Amino acid sequence: MTTDAAMTELITLIKRAHALGTIGELLAWDEQVNLPPGGAEQRATQQAALAAAHHAAASDPRIGELLAALEGRQGLDLAGASTGQPPGRPDSDARPAVVPQLDDDQQAVVAQARRDYDRATKLPADFVREKAAQGSRGYHAWARARATDDFASYAPVLEKNLELARREAAYLGFGGAPYDCMLDKHDPGLTASVVDRLFGELKRELVPLVREITASPAAARAVAAAEKLCGFPLDGQRAFLREVTEAIGFDYSRGRIDVSLHPFCSGTGSDVRMTTRYKEHQPLDALFSSIHETGHGLYEQGLPAAHLGTALGIHAGMAVHESQSRLWENQVARSLGFWRCFEPRWRERFPAQTAGVNADELYLAVNAVEPTVIRVDADEVTYNLHIVLRFELEKQLFAGALAVRDLPAAWRAASRELLGLEPASDREGVLQDVHWSDGSFGYFPSYCLGNMIAAQLWYRVLALRPAIEEEFARGDFSWLLGWLRENVHAHGRRFSAMELVRRVTGDTLSPRPLVRYLRERYGGLDRE
Amino acid sequence: MTTDAAMTELITLIKRAHALGTIGELLAWDEQVNLPPGGAEQRATQQAALAAAHHAAASDPRIGELLAALEGRQGLDLAGASTGQPPGRPDSDARPAVVPQLDDDQQAVVAQARRDYDRATKLPADFVREKAAQGSRGYHAWARARATDDFASYAPVLEKNLELARREAAYLGFGGAPYDCMLDKHDPGLTASVVDRLFGELKRELVPLVREITASPAAARAVAAAEKLCGFPLDGQRAFLREVTEAIGFDYSRGRIDVSLHPFCSGTGSDVRMTTRYKEHQPLDALFSSIHETGHGLYEQGLPAAHLGTALGIHAGMAVHESQSRLWENQVARSLGFWRCFEPRWRERFPAQTAGVNADELYLAVNAVEPTVIRVDADEVTYNLHIVLRFELEKQLFAGALAVRDLPAAWRAASRELLGLEPASDREGVLQDVHWSDGSFGYFPSYCLGNMIAAQLWYRVLALRPAIEEEFARGDFSWLLGWLRENVHAHGRRFSAMELVRRVTGDTLSPRPLVRYLRERYGGLDRE
Repeated sequence: MTTDAAMTELITLIKRAHALGTIGELLAWDEQVNLPPGGAEQRATQQAALAAAHHAAASDPRIGELLAALEGRQGLDLAGASTGQPPGRPDSDARPAVVPQLDDDQQAVVAQARRDYDRATKLPADFVREKAAQGSRGYHAWARARATDDFASYAPVLEKNLELARREAAYLGFGGAPYDCMLDKHDPGLTASVVDRLFGELKRELVPLVREITASPAAARAVAAAEKLCGFPLDGQRAFLREVTEAIGFDYSRGRIDVSLHPFCSGTGSDVRMTTRYKEHQPLDALFSSIHETGHGLYEQGLPAAHLGTALGIHAGMAVHESQSRLWENQVARSLGFWRCFEPRWRERFPAQTAGVNADELYLAVNAVEPTVIRVDADEVTYNLHIVLRFELEKQLFAGALAVRDLPAAWRAASRELLGLEPASDREGVLQDVHWSDGSFGYFPSYCLGNMIAAQLWYRVLALRPAIEEEFARGDFSWLLGWLRENVHAHGRRFSAMELVRRVTGDTLSPRPLVRYLRERYGGLDRE
Repeated sequence: MTTDAAMTELITLIKRAHALGTIGELLAWDEQVNLPPGGAEQRATQQAALAAAHHAAASDPRIGELLAALEGRQGLDLAGASTGQPPGRPDSDARPAVVPQLDDDQQAVVAQARRDYDRATKLPADFVREKAAQGSRGYHAWARARATDDFASYAPVLEKNLELARREAAYLGFGGAPYDCMLDKHDPGLTASVVDRLFGELKRELVPLVREITASPAAARAVAAAEKLCGFPLDGQRAFLREVTEAIGFDYSRGRIDVSLHPFCSGTGSDVRMTTRYKEHQPLDALFSSIHETGHGLYEQGLPAAHLGTALGIHAGMAVHESQSRLWENQVARSLGFWRCFEPRWRERFPAQTAGVNADELYLAVNAVEPTVIRVDADEVTYNLHIVLRFELEKQLFAGALAVRDLPAAWRAASRELLGLEPASDREGVLQDVHWSDGSFGYFPSYCLGNMIAAQLWYRVLALRPAIEEEFARGDFSWLLGWLRENVHAHGRRFSAMELVRRVTGDTLSPRPLVRYLRERYGGLDRE
C-alpha cells in the first residue's frame, strides 16, 4: 500500500464520521428551530442512535491501523514510509512521530485524525454513558437550582462533573493537568498557563478602563439613546438584517437564518444554519446577534470545501471561531463607517421609529456600555471581565484551591473586584450559566480569547488598509472578507490559534490590541 | 437466555436501526423544506454516510442470531424455546416457523424483523450500490427526457431498471414472481393476482360511471364554480387550513406543516412533518392536499408510541396509509356535513373572495370532476383509472408481454380505453411520472387500493354511525378519529392490508364500496 493510498482511505473514513457528526448538528438545529414540543423524546432516541453510529465510525479499527502506519510506527507496509522501527502495538500515547514522507498538509490531517481517534477509543464506553447521563441530569438540576436560587442542591452535580472531568483527562493522557485537557478540547494545544498570562495582563488594563468608560457622560447618553429605540416591526427587522448580513458577505445560497430562543450558528460549508430572535423594543439585539452569527457563518462558508471533515477543512478551534464573529459584530458593525452605509437604509425601513433619533444617538446606542452582573447581557467591553472571572474560578476548582461549596462567595467577591457589582442572588451569580451543568469546563476562555484575536487581526487589517472604514461606508466589505478568507479561513485547522495569530499578524497573541481598540472606540465617544 | 430477554434485545436493535431510518426521512424533509440550494451535494454526502450506518445497524449479525433462535430454528439456547431441531446454519429462505412460545404480538415483531433483516443482508453490497447509482442517473435521464419529450433516450434506463428489479426479486426469494416482489415492498403480502382481480372488477364498473358523471350537467357547473375561486391571500389560506386540520384532529404539539414544491407527509409518532403549497387562484388545492396529508399524519400520530420501530408501532403498508389520507380528504372533507361546518368560517376569512360564490357552487367546486391525462391533476373519480392504467402496464412489462420500446403506444391506447383521452405527447403520457425512473415499480397500485379501503371503511363507519355527517356539521370529528385509532392505527403492522380490512369491515376487500361511494356522491350532485 502506498502512502497516498493510505491517506486516501483514511480521509474517506474520517469524512464519513464527520458527515454523521454534521447530521447530529442538523438534528440539534432542527430541535431548536422546528421540533414540535411533543417530539423531544423521539429526538433524543434519534440522537442516541446517531451517536452510537458516529462512535462506531470514529473508532473504526481500520482508522487506527492507517494512523499507526502513517505515523511511521508500525503495521501496514507503506511503500516509502518505513521507519525501520520493529512492528508492535501502536503506542498512541506517544506524540505522532514526524514522518518525512508526509507533506505538511498530510501531517495536519493525520494529527487531527489521531486526536479524534484517541478521543473515540480511549474513553471507555461505560464512562461515556455515565458522562452523558450525568450531563442530562446536571442540566435539569441546574435549571431547578437556578429557578429556586438553590445552589446547595446543585453543588453535588458540580462535584460529580469535576470528578468526571478529571477522569476524562486521565483517560486522554492529561492526568497531571486536567484543566489543560478541558481547554484543549475547545482549542487544540491551549494551556491554562498561557490563558493565565493573557488574562492577567488584560485584567490589569481593563478593570480601570471599564470604570473610566462607564463613568463618562457618553455612557449615560448611550444608554438613554438605546432606550429610545422601540416599536420596530419584526418583519422590517428581518428584512433589514437580511440586507445587512448579505451585504457583508453571507451567501444565502449556502445557508439560512431562522428563529430560536437563543441565537446560534451551526452547520458548515454549503449548509450553514444561523438563528436569531426578534424583540420589538430592542431592534439592535436581533441585528447585532445576527451579525455575530454571520461572522461564524462566514468562517464556516470560507473553509476549503474539498477538505470538509479533515483538518484542512474544519475550523481552528473555538477561540478563532469567536474571533470571526466578534470582528464582524464589533470592529466592523459598531464602526462609524458601517453606520454611514446603513443608517440611511435603516431610516428608510423604519421612518416613524427613527424620526426622534439623530445620527449621534444612533451611534451611541450601538456602542452603549453598561455594567451588569449577567454575562449574556454584557456589552463588548465588560464582557471580557465576565470571562476572566469564570476562568479564574475554573482554574482554582481544578487546582483544588477552591471547594465547590465556596463557589458562591468566591463568585461574589470576584464580581465585586472585576465588575464593581455584586449579584443580588446566586441565580444572578454562580447559577447564571448553563455550561458547567453538563461538564463543559474550559469553554468560557475562548470567548475572550476570540475578542483578543479579533482586535489583533483588526490592527493588522488597519495596517494594510488604513482607510478601510471608507470602504464600509460605501457598503464594500469585500476586501476584508477576502483577506479573512485567505489568511484565516483557508487554513482550516492547520495551525493552533496561537500559531495562526503569529503567522497572520507577525506577533504573538496579546491583550494589548484589544485594550487599545476598546480605548480608541469608547474613549472616542466623549470627544464630540 | 430467556425468550423475553431475546425479544428485548432484538427490539432494542430494531429500534436503533429504525431511528437511523427516521433521521434519513428528516434529512429528506429538510432537503425539500429548508436546504439552501447550494447544500445539495453536502446533503448527499450526509445521506450516504447515514445509509451506511443504517445498513450496518440493520444487518447486525446479532439480529440474525436472535431471529434464528426466536424462530425456533437454531442457535442461542432460549429457555423454553427449544424445538428439538439440530443447530445449523440459519435457513432464512424458509418462512419463519411458528414458535408456540411467542405470543401473537411477538410473532408479528419477529416476522417484520426477519423481513427487514433479509432485505438488509440478502442484497449484495455491490448490487445496492449499483441500484442507488442507477436510481440517481435514472432520475436525471427522466427529467431530461420529459423536458425534451424524448422517450427513446429514457428507454434504456427503464430496461436497466427492470433488469435490476428482477435481480432484486431473485435475491429476495421472489425469483418466479418479480412483480409480486415489487408489490410486497410497499404492501407486505400483496400479489399481482389479487390486484388484477380487484382492478379488473373496478375497471368494468368505473369506466362507464366516469363517462356518466363527466357527461352530467353538474360536472360542467362544478368546473365553472371552481374557476370562480381566485385571489385568496396565502396567509389566510394558511390560517384556514391550520384551523381545519386542527379541528379534524391533527396534534400540532406532535407535528407541523411547512411549504414544499410537492406536498408530502413524513415523520412518525410525535414528530410528523407535513408539507403543502399555496396557490392564490386555487385555494382548494392547498386545503385538500393538507387534509390529505393530515390523514397520513393522523395515522402516524395514532401508531402505538411505545412500539415505534417494531411491527406493533409502524404503519401496515402504503395501501392502508393511503386509505387514511383518502378517507379524510374525500369521504369526510368533500361531504356536505363537513362544509356545513366550515363554509361559514371560510366566508368569514375570505369575505371578498367568496361573495360571488353561493353554497351550491362551493359544494360543486369541492366535488369537481374533469378528466385529464395527467394523474396528479385528476379528481378522486378518474384518479383510479390512472392507476389501473399503470398497473396493467407494469404487470405486462414484468411478464415480458410488453417491450419497453412499445410503452408509449401502449400508454396511449390504455389512456384512450380507460379515460377516453389520449395524451398529446409522451411528456403528458408515459413520461409524466417520476416513479419508474429510480425503479419504484409496484408503488402505484397502493394509491387505488387506498381508495378502495377508504370506501369500505367508510361504509362500515356509516353502518355504525349513520348520522355521522351531523357530527361533522357540528365540527365534531372525534368519534371517527377514535374509531380509526382503535380499529386501524392501534394495530400497527400486525395485519396485512387485506387481513386488516377483513377484520374491521367483516368483508374481504372489494372495489364495490368505492364504486358505490362514487356513484352516490357524484350521481347525487345532479339531483338538485
